[in-house]
Amino acid sequence: MEQTNTLQTWPEAAPRLIAVASGRSPADLVIRNGQWVNVHTREVLACHDVAVAAGRFAFIGPDASHCIGPQTEVIDAAGRYMIPGLCDGHMHIESGMLTPAEFAAAVIPHGTTTMFTDPHEIANVLGLEGVRMMHDEALMQPVNIFTQMPSCAPSAPGLETTGHEITPQDVAQAMAWPGIIGLGEMMNFPGVINADPKMLAEIAATQAAGKTVGGHYASPDLGRGLAAYAAGGPADDHEGTCEADAIARVRLGMAAMMRLGSAWYDVASQITAVTEKGLDPRNFILCTDDCHSGTLVNEGHMNRVLRHAIACGADPLVALQMCTINTATHFGLERELGSIAPGRRADLILTSDLRALPIEHVIARGRTVAMSGRLTVDCPHYPWPVAARATVKLGKRLSPDDFVIRAPEGADSVTARVIGVVENQAPTKALSAEMTVAEGRVDPDPARDIAQIALVERHRGTGGVVNAFVSGFGYTGRMAMASTVAHDSHHMIVVGTDRALMAAAANRLGQVGGGVTVWKDGQEIALVPLPIAGLMSDAPAAEVADAAARMVAAMAACGCRLNNAYMQHSLLALVVIPELRISDLGLVDVTTFQLTDLFA
Amino acid sequence: MEQTNTLQTWPEAAPRLIAVASGRSPADLVIRNGQWVNVHTREVLACHDVAVAAGRFAFIGPDASHCIGPQTEVIDAAGRYMIPGLCDGHMHIESGMLTPAEFAAAVIPHGTTTMFTDPHEIANVLGLEGVRMMHDEALMQPVNIFTQMPSCAPSAPGLETTGHEITPQDVAQAMAWPGIIGLGEMMNFPGVINADPKMLAEIAATQAAGKTVGGHYASPDLGRGLAAYAAGGPADDHEGTCEADAIARVRLGMAAMMRLGSAWYDVASQITAVTEKGLDPRNFILCTDDCHSGTLVNEGHMNRVLRHAIACGADPLVALQMCTINTATHFGLERELGSIAPGRRADLILTSDLRALPIEHVIARGRTVAMSGRLTVDCPHYPWPVAARATVKLGKRLSPDDFVIRAPEGADSVTARVIGVVENQAPTKALSAEMTVAEGRVDPDPARDIAQIALVERHRGTGGVVNAFVSGFGYTGRMAMASTVAHDSHHMIVVGTDRALMAAAANRLGQVGGGVTVWKDGQEIALVPLPIAGLMSDAPAAEVADAAARMVAAMAACGCRLNNAYMQHSLLALVVIPELRISDLGLVDVTTFQLTDLFA
Repeated sequence: MEQTNTLQTWPEAAPRLIAVASGRSPADLVIRNGQWVNVHTREVLACHDVAVAAGRFAFIGPDASHCIGPQTEVIDAAGRYMIPGLCDGHMHIESGMLTPAEFAAAVIPHGTTTMFTDPHEIANVLGLEGVRMMHDEALMQPVNIFTQMPSCAPSAPGLETTGHEITPQDVAQAMAWPGIIGLGEMMNFPGVINADPKMLAEIAATQAAGKTVGGHYASPDLGRGLAAYAAGGPADDHEGTCEADAIARVRLGMAAMMRLGSAWYDVASQITAVTEKGLDPRNFILCTDDCHSGTLVNEGHMNRVLRHAIACGADPLVALQMCTINTATHFGLERELGSIAPGRRADLILTSDLRALPIEHVIARGRTVAMSGRLTVDCPHYPWPVAARATVKLGKRLSPDDFVIRAPEGADSVTARVIGVVENQAPTKALSAEMTVAEGRVDPDPARDIAQIALVERHRGTGGVVNAFVSGFGYTGRMAMASTVAHDSHHMIVVGTDRALMAAAANRLGQVGGGVTVWKDGQEIALVPLPIAGLMSDAPAAEVADAAARMVAAMAACGCRLNNAYMQHSLLALVVIPELRISDLGLVDVTTFQLTDLFA
Repeated sequence: MEQTNTLQTWPEAAPRLIAVASGRSPADLVIRNGQWVNVHTREVLACHDVAVAAGRFAFIGPDASHCIGPQTEVIDAAGRYMIPGLCDGHMHIESGMLTPAEFAAAVIPHGTTTMFTDPHEIANVLGLEGVRMMHDEALMQPVNIFTQMPSCAPSAPGLETTGHEITPQDVAQAMAWPGIIGLGEMMNFPGVINADPKMLAEIAATQAAGKTVGGHYASPDLGRGLAAYAAGGPADDHEGTCEADAIARVRLGMAAMMRLGSAWYDVASQITAVTEKGLDPRNFILCTDDCHSGTLVNEGHMNRVLRHAIACGADPLVALQMCTINTATHFGLERELGSIAPGRRADLILTSDLRALPIEHVIARGRTVAMSGRLTVDCPHYPWPVAARATVKLGKRLSPDDFVIRAPEGADSVTARVIGVVENQAPTKALSAEMTVAEGRVDPDPARDIAQIALVERHRGTGGVVNAFVSGFGYTGRMAMASTVAHDSHHMIVVGTDRALMAAAANRLGQVGGGVTVWKDGQEIALVPLPIAGLMSDAPAAEVADAAARMVAAMAACGCRLNNAYMQHSLLALVVIPELRISDLGLVDVTTFQLTDLFA
């Protein structure tokens, strides 16, 4: 595997670092006259110099002139703050609809120099091989992208068929890869609490490798349930939403990861554990979890989270620790990154204000990677193979007939189960509707806001289509929308009021290799091509953000008035969140975790 | 290797821990109605229960009745505090003149349940094999004794001959042993600063194993020197003596280990970095470094250090973190021990006062190991082989003639270099004295407080004796004292005013296999037998402490009035501390690091 951004290990670089610190050899880079923001002591130290060699910090002190030779690059910090590069403690690159390279290109100018990423989505589509590709592209970048090995694919065994499954053997194998930092979020918390041998085997393989087990505990039970989950091994959780959640996790020895994503707002409600209750902040960590490309382009990344944490009342140095040294320590990397100290990767930001946090100059591994919001380096692309670009396998050309919903023999009317979308909530409602039968069919009824939904199998080309009804989008007229981003198994979700357009939309995604398409009145009005695994684009973030914005506008043009309408669409197959969902196996009652019939 | 105290790993124990936390399986032990001292959040939580299974914490909460079965042992904490077992961040077991088993037996009742030990002394005598024996006995104990692989034997290459040398290959090999936690203190700080390939290879082997490199930086240079040392890889230091020392280390990403040993008093002068300067305390750690058996018997161990830190003004919870979770985190063990949280080793103390800190009940790995100051478990002995008990190899029976100091041919008087002992200081003075010659000999001159000192080779039976003069002990009359504790190469140091008694003392240690003996007026008046490597006794601490006290009294009976006189004796061959020392190769000028002549 080509790694364009190789970095000497600390022991490899040590002779040079020592020589530079001692004044026997010139540094590659010296930054002069900065304010050293020290996340070990939680201090700001004015008038300090920093010397860098071999991509690592060699010397920090009031005067590094002894480290300057004729070839040494010298940057005048002019009294600005020198803070460590920012770390995102848990995130999914696929949420940006971008490859790791383009994600990195988008966030480096925001000061993110380290990410802990769980390529859970591609794992569902391409299995271990897909994870490896993400991992390999991650290692090619000029910043640090560590991979958390996905733990739960499928997330709901027996209720869906993923493109591939992740096994404990896969996990054990991946633990030896150079960029694997631990296990990705263990979402199957009921499995842990019930000592599911497969889940525990994945955790055991991770712990045996001395790595960090990521958690995901989406339950309000802070008593036995949380204690049992913690006893199973997960070392962090990012599903907390209130102060009590954060406190309970940290008391039990876990890290509370507080997230501000595009649609997650869990920092303000939890950080009071530190700002008001005064708890030791060392086990509180900031992360994004999921960011859309639009957020990255228009609002920022970890700089947005850090500013927000400070705005929530956190001391700027404490908040900075929460996205630097706390994160590094959690992953066992406190001697590798997360601070400006000898031996660590020279990841550093120059900023003139610790609260407003303008990201003026970003250095990663001793090299300037962004200036004034502009990327100044290449983020190399992995040579994604055809197999990763041809994952939409429909097995046939879909026709309107594939989307016909037939009534039971002889029925004039039926009581149909309808997936009810609820604005601003992840759970759906299990609705029911009396519907009339025409020519043996049950048709969508836009007048009552009942559209059709179809789950189109796309991993094995079975030609399988599961049809059902959905309400809540408010679509009017003849329209259809299809997406191969369809959590978690990422088949294709098609929603529409017109079977011909549904077929056209599905076939269109088959043609372009995946993405999102919106059709209205006979023609395509928006397309977000996501050719890599049907999940990601290798185009720049700004382009993808524009396409996504046009897609959202197209949904509105079809009559949809929901907030985050696209996210609602893409989550309709997420068969772990109540109440009613669709999968390639049928309609799923997620209150009983059983398949159910379309007609009552 | 027999390990009588095997403990399941967390993943091995996880199914049981989960079942206990969930209430599906009874715990082995439940402690009820305690105050949970939480070192993660830095809180005290009243009225909590703790459930233990398989030697690990399974559940902590306000009510653990669901974990109690008919066989569960239940302890009523009666409102007392439940604090984690105490950790000693850096120490040498040999300093107690005790084997690991007897050291453990002495400190467990004081609440020490985890020690990070550097068997540097035995490494000089028995090399890697000796380290392995210490390591193996350590693993047999009912508490956690981790071994730091010694890094610097010899400590002064070229100036002394050790029994064995430690090589980078030894270090790499030891990193795979189950009880090795990192590299022992890298005392050769000039070597690191000068990028000595051997020292860097040892550090590299440790870092490659993902383990912690212990430091020892005994220099006042807090600028380039310290930065260069930090850039070389050592992750901590315990040689700091003032606030500025501690702050400089922590700013550079090292842990400041503050020690209170039998003769080290470096906590009060450094902890102000936290108590007054308000620095983040997470990288400050308490340790003892060296404790005599008398201190262990009469004063305590880590409980003594913790009480002292609190008396110095530290918040009791912050001070407790400094000898629990901070220590564990430093060694990458924060998910294994150092707190009362699910999955961790169930090491816990019940105490009724967080400041006075009575150690009322000590539990290690879920088992009561001490009650009210009394040990309640066995601390098994390693079957020390003959090779480890027969390390005093004199090669012959020494005679008074071996201690004759001959003057240069034809001289009537000489100017002799004399090692000058300075009370309460480790450095010696390089004195000189005009001395008369009688029958070709230069005799000791007790009237001027000039005694003879001899370094007797004892590792290879060469029969080598190096003779010189020492001043400062104040010995009067006919006496001699010999010790095989003779840092760092641990040959035998004999000091005396009478050559016959010097020979008798040396032969006596050859006979008993090492230790310390004091002779006066023709007979032995004190003996501390240290048969294991000539450094340690496998008798109980109280016995050894008594023998050591009698030995100190015997030194006084010979006229010595020095504080810590025995320590002064045993350090006279420590050829890394200025100014004048003795080694098996001759008299050493430790200002120039060269051998020097006895006569000017």
